[in-house]
Amino acid sequence: MNVRVLIPAAGAGRRMGGGINKQYLELAGQPILARTLEVFEQHPLIDSILMIVSPAEIAFCTEEIVVPGNYRKVAAVIAGGLERQDSVYCGLQACNADDDDLILIHDGARPLVSCEIIDRVIATAQQHGACLTAVPVKDTVKSVHKGCVVDTLDRTTLWLAQTPQAFRYDLIRAAYDRAAALGLRGTDDAQLVELAGFTVRVVQGDYRNLKITTPEDLPVAEQLLAAEKKVGA
Amino acid sequence: MNVRVLIPAAGAGRRMGGGINKQYLELAGQPILARTLEVFEQHPLIDSILMIVSPAEIAFCTEEIVVPGNYRKVAAVIAGGLERQDSVYCGLQACNADDDDLILIHDGARPLVSCEIIDRVIATAQQHGACLTAVPVKDTVKSVHKGCVVDTLDRTTLWLAQTPQAFRYDLIRAAYDRAAALGLRGTDDAQLVELAGFTVRVVQGDYRNLKITTPEDLPVAEQLLAAEKKVGA
Repeated sequence: MNVRVLIPAAGAGRRMGGGINKQYLELAGQPILARTLEVFEQHPLIDSILMIVSPAEIAFCTEEIVVPGNYRKVAAVIAGGLERQDSVYCGLQACNADDDDLILIHDGARPLVSCEIIDRVIATAQQHGACLTAVPVKDTVKSVHKGCVVDTLDRTTLWLAQTPQAFRYDLIRAAYDRAAALGLRGTDDAQLVELAGFTVRVVQGDYRNLKITTPEDLPVAEQLLAAEKKVGA
Repeated sequence: MNVRVLIPAAGAGRRMGGGINKQYLELAGQPILARTLEVFEQHPLIDSILMIVSPAEIAFCTEEIVVPGNYRKVAAVIAGGLERQDSVYCGLQACNADDDDLILIHDGARPLVSCEIIDRVIATAQQHGACLTAVPVKDTVKSVHKGCVVDTLDRTTLWLAQTPQAFRYDLIRAAYDRAAALGLRGTDDAQLVELAGFTVRVVQGDYRNLKITTPEDLPVAEQLLAAEKKVGA
């Protein structure tokens, strides 16, 4: 049984403005994507990493990120598709996994993932086949239609999904094959697994494991990283 | 027509650990609560501010926050109740408002609120009677039961409520009187207004307007504040 990581990093970063893929922006002097890779490269339970980027960025990603970082677990840098879901499906088809391998899927733009979270998702996915990391919603959640509140949701049952999400290969592959056949789209990987009728477990994540999506996320991530280093020193 | 601000700041700050009321913690050299007050003190459309704190903190808040800051709009520092909702109700009963006054309710622990957001909630509440500021959910939201995913919500309709929330006095007072009579609890002020059958508008907020709830929020807020100053300089 191998533990393989898929890192979809083909995002155009439209919400960041400027047309730059946000994952190549620097966070405390290092590209975001390099920092994400570093965590999995160092984690003892991870066997290999497959990076999925836009076709135009394969050479750049290899030469500017993977080679300089000497990431020995990176098995390949392959071309993804138009949307995140398409890219993950490319990775699942390309990764040459056995049915009982574990597949971790992690956003390239979440560089603050911790070893503890990775430990937790691996342990739970090994036991139950499918899991994701998430944090409880802290704010009041409103359902809004045409600028007016329609409903206030019961937040005690609501969690915000993060990554990594981890699945046994046969299960996530079946879910993606089914989604492709039926034309289903999910907002995360787990949703396709849920729609295929499998149970997905939830393990406690960390509010610090944020996804760098909008410009104000970058200074926040830098600060969290600095605070982490201080604690670690 | 007056515009009055209620600032419930009686929170025990349990989620921060250590038993300190988080609103007296320092953010870039100034207590969080003082920074919150500063924004409303400086805003030209605000007429008066009523602070609602725990009974044991009235003297401390007055002597350590209000007097040193010379906040002339602070009409009084009064005792709140056990929970946030009880404190707001104390404020509504104490504030001696006219029916057509506007009441803004704002968390003491949201010091990064901007003048633009305050402008927007005032304008919308003046026109429609009730509004809150909120931001669209960026993450995938899962409904979770006993550690398993039950449902993935359609996030395109979901917003995270923030403060300030603004209401015509007669309307918010009626909603709170009704809640007290029926024993209703809401997760925010708007929910009581919604439950009373009134329509609540939503105006665009700002992800930076975070509530300082858990220890990792403090360095994040400091960084956002620093970034804001750099832009302003």
